[in-house]
Amino acid sequence: MSNQKKVKQNSKTKIRSFPDEHFLLHSQSAERLYYEFAKDQPIIDYHNHLDAVGIAANRRAENIAELWLLTDPYKHRAMRLAGVPEMLITGKTSPKEKFLQWATVFPKTIGNPLFHWSCLELKYCFDIDEILNVSNAESIWQECNNIIRNIRRGELDWLRFWNVESLCTSDEPLNSLASHQFVSKNSLQLLPSLRGDSLLLTNIRNDWFDHIYSVRSLDDYCNIIVDRIDTFDNAGCRLADHSLDNGFRFVSVKKEDAKQIFIQFKQGQMLPEEETALHSFLLRFLCNEYKKRHWTLQLHIGAVRQTSDRLRRLTGQTGGYACMGNSVDIVSLCRLFNSLEGENQLPNIILYTLNPSDNAVLATLCGSFTEDGIAGKIRFGPAWWYNDFDDAIRRHLTDLAGYSLLSNFPGMTTDSRSVLSFSRHDYFRRILCNWLGERIGHGEIPDNDELLVPLLESLCAGNARSLLVSK
Amino acid sequence: MSNQKKVKQNSKTKIRSFPDEHFLLHSQSAERLYYEFAKDQPIIDYHNHLDAVGIAANRRAENIAELWLLTDPYKHRAMRLAGVPEMLITGKTSPKEKFLQWATVFPKTIGNPLFHWSCLELKYCFDIDEILNVSNAESIWQECNNIIRNIRRGELDWLRFWNVESLCTSDEPLNSLASHQFVSKNSLQLLPSLRGDSLLLTNIRNDWFDHIYSVRSLDDYCNIIVDRIDTFDNAGCRLADHSLDNGFRFVSVKKEDAKQIFIQFKQGQMLPEEETALHSFLLRFLCNEYKKRHWTLQLHIGAVRQTSDRLRRLTGQTGGYACMGNSVDIVSLCRLFNSLEGENQLPNIILYTLNPSDNAVLATLCGSFTEDGIAGKIRFGPAWWYNDFDDAIRRHLTDLAGYSLLSNFPGMTTDSRSVLSFSRHDYFRRILCNWLGERIGHGEIPDNDELLVPLLESLCAGNARSLLVSK
Amino acid sequence: MSNQKKVKQNSKTKIRSFPDEHFLLHSQSAERLYYEFAKDQPIIDYHNHLDAVGIAANRRAENIAELWLLTDPYKHRAMRLAGVPEMLITGKTSPKEKFLQWATVFPKTIGNPLFHWSCLELKYCFDIDEILNVSNAESIWQECNNIIRNIRRGELDWLRFWNVESLCTSDEPLNSLASHQFVSKNSLQLLPSLRGDSLLLTNIRNDWFDHIYSVRSLDDYCNIIVDRIDTFDNAGCRLADHSLDNGFRFVSVKKEDAKQIFIQFKQGQMLPEEETALHSFLLRFLCNEYKKRHWTLQLHIGAVRQTSDRLRRLTGQTGGYACMGNSVDIVSLCRLFNSLEGENQLPNIILYTLNPSDNAVLATLCGSFTEDGIAGKIRFGPAWWYNDFDDAIRRHLTDLAGYSLLSNFPGMTTDSRSVLSFSRHDYFRRILCNWLGERIGHGEIPDNDELLVPLLESLCAGNARSLLVSK
Repeated sequence: MSNQKKVKQNSKTKIRSFPDEHFLLHSQSAERLYYEFAKDQPIIDYHNHLDAVGIAANRRAENIAELWLLTDPYKHRAMRLAGVPEMLITGKTSPKEKFLQWATVFPKTIGNPLFHWSCLELKYCFDIDEILNVSNAESIWQECNNIIRNIRRGELDWLRFWNVESLCTSDEPLNSLASHQFVSKNSLQLLPSLRGDSLLLTNIRNDWFDHIYSVRSLDDYCNIIVDRIDTFDNAGCRLADHSLDNGFRFVSVKKEDAKQIFIQFKQGQMLPEEETALHSFLLRFLCNEYKKRHWTLQLHIGAVRQTSDRLRRLTGQTGGYACMGNSVDIVSLCRLFNSLEGENQLPNIILYTLNPSDNAVLATLCGSFTEDGIAGKIRFGPAWWYNDFDDAIRRHLTDLAGYSLLSNFPGMTTDSRSVLSFSRHDYFRRILCNWLGERIGHGEIPDNDELLVPLLESLCAGNARSLLVSK
Repeated sequence: MSNQKKVKQNSKTKIRSFPDEHFLLHSQSAERLYYEFAKDQPIIDYHNHLDAVGIAANRRAENIAELWLLTDPYKHRAMRLAGVPEMLITGKTSPKEKFLQWATVFPKTIGNPLFHWSCLELKYCFDIDEILNVSNAESIWQECNNIIRNIRRGELDWLRFWNVESLCTSDEPLNSLASHQFVSKNSLQLLPSLRGDSLLLTNIRNDWFDHIYSVRSLDDYCNIIVDRIDTFDNAGCRLADHSLDNGFRFVSVKKEDAKQIFIQFKQGQMLPEEETALHSFLLRFLCNEYKKRHWTLQLHIGAVRQTSDRLRRLTGQTGGYACMGNSVDIVSLCRLFNSLEGENQLPNIILYTLNPSDNAVLATLCGSFTEDGIAGKIRFGPAWWYNDFDDAIRRHLTDLAGYSLLSNFPGMTTDSRSVLSFSRHDYFRRILCNWLGERIGHGEIPDNDELLVPLLESLCAGNARSLLVSK
Repeated sequence: MSNQKKVKQNSKTKIRSFPDEHFLLHSQSAERLYYEFAKDQPIIDYHNHLDAVGIAANRRAENIAELWLLTDPYKHRAMRLAGVPEMLITGKTSPKEKFLQWATVFPKTIGNPLFHWSCLELKYCFDIDEILNVSNAESIWQECNNIIRNIRRGELDWLRFWNVESLCTSDEPLNSLASHQFVSKNSLQLLPSLRGDSLLLTNIRNDWFDHIYSVRSLDDYCNIIVDRIDTFDNAGCRLADHSLDNGFRFVSVKKEDAKQIFIQFKQGQMLPEEETALHSFLLRFLCNEYKKRHWTLQLHIGAVRQTSDRLRRLTGQTGGYACMGNSVDIVSLCRLFNSLEGENQLPNIILYTLNPSDNAVLATLCGSFTEDGIAGKIRFGPAWWYNDFDDAIRRHLTDLAGYSLLSNFPGMTTDSRSVLSFSRHDYFRRILCNWLGERIGHGEIPDNDELLVPLLESLCAGNARSLLVSK
């Protein structure tokens, strides 16, 4: 590491030391599947939190902290767990000092996704195969920053570096979609996806609150929603996503009652049970709108976002302090899907769960609602958020395949805010190939390329690609 | 596969290609335990949904679809997940067309129990060791049907083929038990077991509803129940089973209150809380009756059977669309068992759970209620329904052994509607031997036949056999 | 085993037959880590149920039953599961007869923690490497008793035998702490820890009930609590522990309301909702007191202690019949921690769960509440109670590392009532080293002593030691 090196476009294939080229591949079958059929598949990342404006502007970072650390709640969380003072994590300290603090914590993340993710990111993006620590932090800081200055790679360049074919950002209802259209016309496919939580009038954001300030009736409100959905649809949106946080319940509610509750909401007088009813009514209404447009709805189930008020004040709404909720109320999910299905209003669904003890439950639910001609009406999505690490992904794949159909799996998505995170697709592909390779080695899956190659292709990119096809 | 082959009685030992003779056996210890001590044990299947009338008549199937596909909700479910139109699954399409559709789906079931089950069934029953797919579907259809025509094997013949020693069908309270007695007298042991859900007046079936139409009081109703239980007991019944579906709660209720609620039930005016109370009262009453007769009560815990009304209309009550419920209310289970134990009315119990995140909970519960002289007053039963696949069975065995006593395990049961499903006993035995072999290889279990051979024998057949002994 | 052998101080290193020296160590990396860095670390056991009086008196057992069986609820539980009559477990039968009964059950515990624990205890303490069974029970009884008579090892001697550096007993509020101070002055560090359940006025013990008989107001009650806490603090107490049993909920309650409920409690008129409120108020009050004194609070979450009234009558409050509860109400935990954090009253916390399906939830919760300068404000403790076996510990470590930081793990503790149980530290260290070794072998953790040796030292002893440092 004494000499500065240039990152080469083919650096991804030259892993040495840790992680090396066998990383996570414990058998010849796993290596063959990965190197021949998985590694070079393009990336279709259908859910992440990148900023389309930054991509369209090909925005460049000044240093490794800005690119890698300052906006990453996962790393902030690990630093807090290690006792680093908040000032040195998200406070007014310099980016370099924050990086040096992170270096003191990094060796402690063994077994945590951050360890593997970070090693892969340093390796793939900066050709660094040392374990970041307090001794080498200064030299790695310098080396990365030299590279960043020399390669002058902007956000869009990073997407090309990673071989991203399509990308769906998660957009608030009032976001401008001009950047998506600009990039899609001139470069790779950049689509908006609709983050619908504000529309449900829970976790409502300020700009949406202002936008509907003058609305007086539920009918008018629904018209405004439809207008925004049409705008997204016209911009190529194919997916929506909603959070069904811990405590989610679905109840049947008549439109007349919903109208009345909406008026109370506007007057700031909604009771908890009424909030559930209005949420249920609007969720059902939105599902129908998504269905009409052949969108896929992603349900992110089971977060607890109200934990520490202190950290919320210090770090905002997405500061990495959320935790897992209890099991989802399965009867509510069934009731919602059944009531929609009964009126042919059920859109295609991807289920995510934060609590892995619900893996089997949600994978099984996929078989309860189906539609003629649609493979995977309800699908179990990738291991979400805190579950995006080797052991949890293995358990997730086992449950997904065992309780539903592996071939329906929509594939990996980063759910990330950083352009360096696309190595997680590589991480996932290694784990997937290893999961298959282990079962081949044990004689549990036949060693049969006719069977496995199409499967791998669909799980790495094909299934995700088909989500984005206009209907 | 170009030549037609005859199925030979010893075909079970000649597995080639996929699955081969090492299937699921990853060590020499595993192979030795399986081939020397497990493989040839007779089958005692103490809970399944075969039809005693068909067995007594030695009924024969016309073709492989009839034998293997038309009445199998697991396969229907997988076909739906893959998008096959319902018409081609359970509709009026020809059996052959349905088989060809299933062949298109089959390669997608990798990792799902259906893949292993089906491969074993084709191998053991038809000596076919190809992976069924769209290319070979026609020839496999022909080959299987030729064999079916040539061997003229009826349902009873199939049971003998599998070396079934004893079989307990699951029977509604009004089922005729004549077939059981006929078969048991002339061939293998065929016993009824009582499916008691109708008796609890939930999920009540039409014939039972008609049967009790003229009953006016709870006392009269209880007399009718006792009459049916006596009929079953006289026919050699040793087991009952009840579903404790998602939402199960047990409450204490006085007989006077239960009497009043029964009258409201008859008038169609029972409120939800009253339904819980009546269910609790009757469950307690039935447990006492089972205890008196030394029956074992199987509790099937945690299904959600109300999912898609559409699929229920199309495919009936057992169409493969059920899903897993949330964790069982453990306090209700404890309250039920404790209230029975307090009056010496607690029968022997086998617990099943659909939601595998309750494995540890239920295995542990076995140690909370015990009885002098009875090994396994409460036992944790086999991995149930959707959990009947390699990875889930391994986790299940680990939890069962870790949180209770492996030696109390009552052993495998198919819970199936098909005479081909007995290969699942072989599947289970391979997994069990491999589970032991892996631990022997790691030095975690001593390689000691004195210890392991009696254990294996009791888990493969001995414990199940003892369930059927008259007391 | 025909010759009587003397136990040698170095017998721990000479394991033969079963378990042998490779026990639970499946790779060279695992063996190297264990033998070079883990095995000889001292034991800091920060939570167990030994009796300080017996230790101070260096009390000696008469025979192996007294030392090993008579007061061990785990073994009683296994014997009950195997059908041994209660009279021969906890009844008036002779110790020898009980031992012979246990010998009949022991071979059935394969896969259960008791099997490994017992083999290690017989090996390490008596140099016996046979599997206890009905044939060798008599000779093992004789051999162990001869050794016990010859070595004349008292409880304090046993602690030295195991290389115990520090030990925290779990003490009721009114326990005398003189023995702790006597031992700590003359021998190893023996500290009290405060079992606070009685203070919360749930599961209240008789002596505490008598102690507060004349108390009339909540303020007076709180003063009495503070007095006891000060007494413990002066005796070197650094830890408290509370059970949050199945059904735990935390609610906000005003002091005025709590005062009123306390009066109702004194009058025996407290309603269930009021009990929750008073419990919440007192728990919050105690947390603040612990925080002031820089104690660590252990929360033991999720037991169901009301199962069989019959066994409770026969065997007392801790007779081994408890089972696992449902998932903890995560919102209640968050509300409790948040309300404390908001007033800077949150002490350091160690979370334990009885239900392993909450592992991921509780490990994740650690990242939701943090404090500047404190590594591990909330920590996930060791695999608790029924979960203290190889497979469950592996899953626990995987979840702990994946969802929080392995480096924060406070390390193993026995939670036991027997001086033979310290082999569980060895058991844990083998499993930990093997967990690391497996990941090193797979290239998932770098084979780097700079990284791993400090980690191992902190997980085996360092982190536990730091819990006991006075602040």
